[in-house]
Amino acid sequence: MDLGLLHDLAQPNTTKIVLCSLDGLGGLPRPSTGKSELETARLPNLHGLAARSACGLLRHVGPGITPGSGPGHLGLFGYDPLQHPVGRGVLEALGIDFHLKPGDVAARGNFCTVDGDGRITDRRAGRIATDLCVKLCDRLRAIKVDGAEIIVEPVKEHRFVLVLRGDDLSGRLSETDPQALGVPPLTVRALEPAAARTAAVVNEFVERARPLLRDAAPANMILLRGFDRQPDIPLFPVTFRLRAAAVAAYPMYRGLARLVGMDVLDTGATFADEIATLRQRWNDYDFFFLHYKDTDKAGEDGDFDAKVAALERFDAQLPAILTLKPDVLAVSGDHATPSILAAHGWQPVPALVASGYCGADHVSRFTERDCASGALGLVPAQDLMPVLMANALRFQKYGA
Amino acid sequence: MDLGLLHDLAQPNTTKIVLCSLDGLGGLPRPSTGKSELETARLPNLHGLAARSACGLLRHVGPGITPGSGPGHLGLFGYDPLQHPVGRGVLEALGIDFHLKPGDVAARGNFCTVDGDGRITDRRAGRIATDLCVKLCDRLRAIKVDGAEIIVEPVKEHRFVLVLRGDDLSGRLSETDPQALGVPPLTVRALEPAAARTAAVVNEFVERARPLLRDAAPANMILLRGFDRQPDIPLFPVTFRLRAAAVAAYPMYRGLARLVGMDVLDTGATFADEIATLRQRWNDYDFFFLHYKDTDKAGEDGDFDAKVAALERFDAQLPAILTLKPDVLAVSGDHATPSILAAHGWQPVPALVASGYCGADHVSRFTERDCASGALGLVPAQDLMPVLMANALRFQKYGA
Repeated sequence: MDLGLLHDLAQPNTTKIVLCSLDGLGGLPRPSTGKSELETARLPNLHGLAARSACGLLRHVGPGITPGSGPGHLGLFGYDPLQHPVGRGVLEALGIDFHLKPGDVAARGNFCTVDGDGRITDRRAGRIATDLCVKLCDRLRAIKVDGAEIIVEPVKEHRFVLVLRGDDLSGRLSETDPQALGVPPLTVRALEPAAARTAAVVNEFVERARPLLRDAAPANMILLRGFDRQPDIPLFPVTFRLRAAAVAAYPMYRGLARLVGMDVLDTGATFADEIATLRQRWNDYDFFFLHYKDTDKAGEDGDFDAKVAALERFDAQLPAILTLKPDVLAVSGDHATPSILAAHGWQPVPALVASGYCGADHVSRFTERDCASGALGLVPAQDLMPVLMANALRFQKYGA
Repeated sequence: MDLGLLHDLAQPNTTKIVLCSLDGLGGLPRPSTGKSELETARLPNLHGLAARSACGLLRHVGPGITPGSGPGHLGLFGYDPLQHPVGRGVLEALGIDFHLKPGDVAARGNFCTVDGDGRITDRRAGRIATDLCVKLCDRLRAIKVDGAEIIVEPVKEHRFVLVLRGDDLSGRLSETDPQALGVPPLTVRALEPAAARTAAVVNEFVERARPLLRDAAPANMILLRGFDRQPDIPLFPVTFRLRAAAVAAYPMYRGLARLVGMDVLDTGATFADEIATLRQRWNDYDFFFLHYKDTDKAGEDGDFDAKVAALERFDAQLPAILTLKPDVLAVSGDHATPSILAAHGWQPVPALVASGYCGADHVSRFTERDCASGALGLVPAQDLMPVLMANALRFQKYGA
């Protein structure tokens, strides 16, 4: 749906919406039992909720396409991920909770090792310790370049984020990482005419970094890739006329929520902390995005039993959310992470929508298989937000 | 999905995909029993496969739209048939296994009868015998026209194919067949400015044909319609990075596969021959399109029992395909041919996808009714190929 139309239809109300994203929710049957993680777990609360919900399956990007966390969450937030690509540099910045501003250009940085002739001998500088990365980033912060503010933030081991801030910067730049050893880092080229000045800024930054790192072997040079400008994305609170808050312990998801203009609430490290935050700030917002990470972690580890346990832990917390009596409660995820794949998957993700007006279906178990025949159907993830808005009686009629 | 995006996501692997197209697969219940052909047939192998597959329904063009064989198969091959129309002239050429080249313009030709004043008295020349058609086509081959090579190929009875080969030809031409008696054939007009030269070539060809056929009554003139240029279609093996082969006994389907760039394998006249070819060439390709014609023929004949028998014959051959252990096996069709319609139908067509990662659903019978509640959903046919690619672990993740 066109976001402009959704904005035109949005109307104020006092109803409250909670959208729970169970990261990597969808799974696949374990061959030995024929049952998926959701089918194996004991989930009395989720199944009970599914029985009085409209259920379905969400597809975040397209058929057969495995979504990254960025497109997966943009879909849940109501955006077509193909219309709003989020580049790797921007995601890396979001992942360390860096507050990008509109127009910022971000890149993924690596410390690397070069020999006396400047040729790369280790693209990851022997995976230096994070505290050394922090110190070397401090050195790079001393660099001043005309035309843009330079911001350098450590990530982990040899990885850092470079952010350029200024007017009329472009992210359409080639990478300096040749993805090979025995050759020097590449010079950045502008991939569009308007990027020429930004390319010059980056190349000057790289040349000034060289002498600053000369004595820092194995981390005596840098590589930059995944240049990207923060996307111009219609803001979520404006589009849907919602006071919207994100409750997420992990930086990446806080960053994705901030990217679309949600308020990102301070919270603790556990899901129980997140629910406490939800309760504390209940009166301040109309919409809460609540993120649960454990399901994805277990799936990525290929640990079927751990994913089952993560689902059961979520299930145990669900009554605490229900106690708040949200007018609309949705439970879904940003992508599948089947344990048997030990990676993100392309499989559609179960979703449920509970409200006084959701029109419950025959589905009484919150599983991949059961949700396939639910009333929501198999739909693009970006179709979920309009359904939540409607269930919250926050959309006017279209046409007379 | 944008084919460019799919191309960008495609990655090499050693997995093998088999796509079985049961022509005219979908049916409708026979009023006396309330059961469709698929519901009536004894199909232990197909139902068993469905039980461990993800099932669904494919719609090849749009709601309520009955697909021809061209759009039906283009959909199965991953193309939006509305974006890649295949004209009648091109289909006629494909149907006789004529090897069209990029840029060729093809038209359907009829021999017809005209009176002494050149007015049409029989648009089909009394359906002359095919061997006479062959001889008259030989006469027409003597015609040389500046600006294009002229190729004339007999089809059957009064029908032939005209192919123009050369640079910068256009298929945007009006027809010479007035679809009426008592009037002369029409002059071809260019339907776009760039087609003016091609129109002149065709008109010169028609004028030179007239004296060559003067003594050949009832086949003493020709009519041309369905002019079409071979579509510029992204090649299937390039788009999906697959070594792709078609195993099809019938010329039309060989031609459609050739149109998208698949290798068309030599095979025999029966489905058993096709499976033997599949086995022999198993190591040479990543993707096999396997075509089964009998279902459509029986449906077109309005012969419900024959279609049931054709389904049962396919079922009996299915184990021979399974023995090859394809990583991904899909069974579907290019359109419905319900026996009670005795024609192609608009009904969505059952589909199943079997793989180690397909996420089996509740569907345990491969019928129209059961597949309606499967995990694949009711989706455009062009969504199938990306799903097969994903199940073959041949797509990278989209976005980080």
